[in-house]
Amino acid sequence: MTPWRTAIATSDETGLWIRGYDIKDLMKNATFTDLIFVLHQGRMPGAKERGLLDAILVSVADHGAGAPSCAAARLVASGNRESLAAAVAAGLLAVGDDHGGAGTLCMEMLAEGLADGVREGLGVEQVAARILKAAAAEKRRIPGLGHRVHTKDPRVDVLFDMARDAGLKGDAIALLRAIESGLEANGKKIPINVDGALAAVLHEMGFAPSAGKFIFMIGRVAGLTAEVAEEYAREKPMRIRFDVEYDGVPPRPIETPKE
Amino acid sequence: MTPWRTAIATSDETGLWIRGYDIKDLMKNATFTDLIFVLHQGRMPGAKERGLLDAILVSVADHGAGAPSCAAARLVASGNRESLAAAVAAGLLAVGDDHGGAGTLCMEMLAEGLADGVREGLGVEQVAARILKAAAAEKRRIPGLGHRVHTKDPRVDVLFDMARDAGLKGDAIALLRAIESGLEANGKKIPINVDGALAAVLHEMGFAPSAGKFIFMIGRVAGLTAEVAEEYAREKPMRIRFDVEYDGVPPRPIETPKE
Amino acid sequence: MTPWRTAIATSDETGLWIRGYDIKDLMKNATFTDLIFVLHQGRMPGAKERGLLDAILVSVADHGAGAPSCAAARLVASGNRESLAAAVAAGLLAVGDDHGGAGTLCMEMLAEGLADGVREGLGVEQVAARILKAAAAEKRRIPGLGHRVHTKDPRVDVLFDMARDAGLKGDAIALLRAIESGLEANGKKIPINVDGALAAVLHEMGFAPSAGKFIFMIGRVAGLTAEVAEEYAREKPMRIRFDVEYDGVPPRPIETPKE
Amino acid sequence: MTPWRTAIATSDETGLWIRGYDIKDLMKNATFTDLIFVLHQGRMPGAKERGLLDAILVSVADHGAGAPSCAAARLVASGNRESLAAAVAAGLLAVGDDHGGAGTLCMEMLAEGLADGVREGLGVEQVAARILKAAAAEKRRIPGLGHRVHTKDPRVDVLFDMARDAGLKGDAIALLRAIESGLEANGKKIPINVDGALAAVLHEMGFAPSAGKFIFMIGRVAGLTAEVAEEYAREKPMRIRFDVEYDGVPPRPIETPKE
Repeated sequence: MTPWRTAIATSDETGLWIRGYDIKDLMKNATFTDLIFVLHQGRMPGAKERGLLDAILVSVADHGAGAPSCAAARLVASGNRESLAAAVAAGLLAVGDDHGGAGTLCMEMLAEGLADGVREGLGVEQVAARILKAAAAEKRRIPGLGHRVHTKDPRVDVLFDMARDAGLKGDAIALLRAIESGLEANGKKIPINVDGALAAVLHEMGFAPSAGKFIFMIGRVAGLTAEVAEEYAREKPMRIRFDVEYDGVPPRPIETPKE
Repeated sequence: MTPWRTAIATSDETGLWIRGYDIKDLMKNATFTDLIFVLHQGRMPGAKERGLLDAILVSVADHGAGAPSCAAARLVASGNRESLAAAVAAGLLAVGDDHGGAGTLCMEMLAEGLADGVREGLGVEQVAARILKAAAAEKRRIPGLGHRVHTKDPRVDVLFDMARDAGLKGDAIALLRAIESGLEANGKKIPINVDGALAAVLHEMGFAPSAGKFIFMIGRVAGLTAEVAEEYAREKPMRIRFDVEYDGVPPRPIETPKE
Repeated sequence: MTPWRTAIATSDETGLWIRGYDIKDLMKNATFTDLIFVLHQGRMPGAKERGLLDAILVSVADHGAGAPSCAAARLVASGNRESLAAAVAAGLLAVGDDHGGAGTLCMEMLAEGLADGVREGLGVEQVAARILKAAAAEKRRIPGLGHRVHTKDPRVDVLFDMARDAGLKGDAIALLRAIESGLEANGKKIPINVDGALAAVLHEMGFAPSAGKFIFMIGRVAGLTAEVAEEYAREKPMRIRFDVEYDGVPPRPIETPKE
Repeated sequence: MTPWRTAIATSDETGLWIRGYDIKDLMKNATFTDLIFVLHQGRMPGAKERGLLDAILVSVADHGAGAPSCAAARLVASGNRESLAAAVAAGLLAVGDDHGGAGTLCMEMLAEGLADGVREGLGVEQVAARILKAAAAEKRRIPGLGHRVHTKDPRVDVLFDMARDAGLKGDAIALLRAIESGLEANGKKIPINVDGALAAVLHEMGFAPSAGKFIFMIGRVAGLTAEVAEEYAREKPMRIRFDVEYDGVPPRPIETPKE
């Protein structure tokens, strides 16, 4: 087998290095959030970058037991008490474009829009108008706006205020705000959600679009562990029941038996 | 359906609270590591607790592409490029008693041993001797010692030094050290590994034994996201091959066809 | 890397053999159920063995959208529409001792009980009495009896009738029936469920206890694919909501901010 | 919570129906393969349909321990011995467009191509030429052709012969063969693989494109259970090692410690 190659971590009998940093130095001098930054960007963050990434991770860690990720983890814990990892992994599997993963689509949209703007000398309003027009033509939802619980997502303003205080450039945030305003001008009140907010901030911090999902997953796994711990501690196996209505064909005989 | 009950998170149209803390306050005033502590212990940690939990999470985040969790994530990314979550979840599924999960077994052992010691007035050496004797009789390995790469795990001393500086009681660490010494006295040099070190520290910080696995998972998922990102960025799908030797029955005809 | 060894399958540029059988012969002369038997027992089944294994796989394939495995698959499909495999895998993760996996525990119990009976010259009633006594002393439930939907599981009599017609020895079935009768004599009407029925039959067919879970998983994955297909076809993403009641600590300020 | 709706399965205290068929009738009169057909098509198959679906399921069940799905299952079994389901699920997670899932893409291509042909009065050669031209322009691989092990996939001819004997229309097979010939005429010998063969046959049998993945998963889960059983029986935990070469940045100090 050809050896695998990696630029992330290496170890020997008594040492371990992550992106070139000695694990002993990291343990003494880096927070976990620093390490997440190191793993994805290959360098230690500054204090303001650390603060923003902390806020993002905190913002997505948990949103209640009924979110698809948390509910999937609890259901698996309800049937399978053999492996804590099985329940947590099932929760992660619920993360996709429609749950927790819109940040990635939003980062792609923002990156493309901002690049178009620079190349063609357009302002954010013009870019936003173009994005809205394209989405309307294709009847697509804009990723990063709207939430099934929140009419106004409490996490958005906090994150954007912190980003401004941290001195980020602000172009991705401005574009996303322009899209939100454009929708409202069209009579659609679909405010920015946490996926959109983290997308704009992660883009401005230099993360690749995949980070929209990866950072959500890291944050959410913290919540999932607590949800699974609570399910084990408070609930019996097989306690979850659903009301299901069958609307298929009525009872009937088998027409062609196997022999 | 009976409503689910939870003491973790609740939300309304414009708010979200985790263990009673407003998400806006948490985003501004808590690190991600604080939130992990909040989720599992229901209160904010002090600065020293935060530092210890940071060090633990940093210590387990990644140990190279060949660890079962990282390799499983990469294999899944090699066959299935449709879902980042699928690859990360597969990595988590590799976490069990034999990989990353020994901390839970070790925490149970330490908790029981320390409780026995208090109840029966035994010192840590006596408790350690009893644990070693029982393990030898049942031919069990002691969880939290030994590593397939490290003869001396670089993370152990750092963590125990930080724990001493943080003023932890030190009883679980002392018991684990006594077990290590007892093994060495029997001619078996099987040093404490990172699972054992985090087990002793998490126990002294008041975490339940399940945290041995949960905290490992939270740390490791950070590494898994980076491993999967690298696999996507640097490698083609289906690049991973194994040398497999077949040693089963030789070619033969089917003796009883279906009709 | 040392080559892996396997006695299951081998291939070359133009051929593929499973347990020594040429894939071309198997495709032409074996049913899928035959192949499942071949994979686990290393030989083709006879017609009666095939019929029993078919009946077992059919019996566990689906039990409605609300079973934990099916509901977990649907929840994951509701959040993550990127990967069909993610949803199906999440459904499998719900399979454990409390859901679909009791067959394995029951097979272990039956194997041990029958071996004890032979060794000590006990009849099934005596063995059953001993099992019931031990379970009562340890306040354990007997695996393979009781169902949260069925007061009488419709699949049990069918399977046992087929097993009798197929000429199985009948000792495991007799032991399980004796346990059921013993419970009823103690005033506990907890009838044999499908896990118990398949356990008794699989044991008599020569399967190892792990087959109690493996065969359930193979059958259930068929149902999971249909559940996921229906979720995609009939439902929108994020449609699943739960009523959740928060009973944790009330809103409170953060006592120890990070700096 | 609004009740879920389903047309697949329903049960009451003593009964269970799948697509309207009584489970007792199915157990006595249907094979497992029949039930898979019932679950996805809502009716019992005829004998020739059953035979074809059997052959497809048999053909994909296992391809050796080194396939990404099997290897991922073994890796997870190597680290996590707590849950058989965790290992099997990890194997399924490796199924995607690049491993086992190309059948779905191929079915979409064939369905679209055949519809175009009918609408525009084109023969399969003309449709094939158009497909090849489009793929070349976009530098896309054609799904359903090429295999990393087989220069000639032994399963293709068997399946197509059985399909012809079963009296299938043959249009999807003809189109796929025309694509294969078109590639060869361009000097590219990339023969049809099993994913392509099952795609053509499943399309002609009336399955939806998602069945390309679903049927592969049902077949493969049989192999995965055997692979995991063998890993448990023959190998110790943590036995799998990889040669990994680190090519990242060299050791370096931390430039910006956390305080």
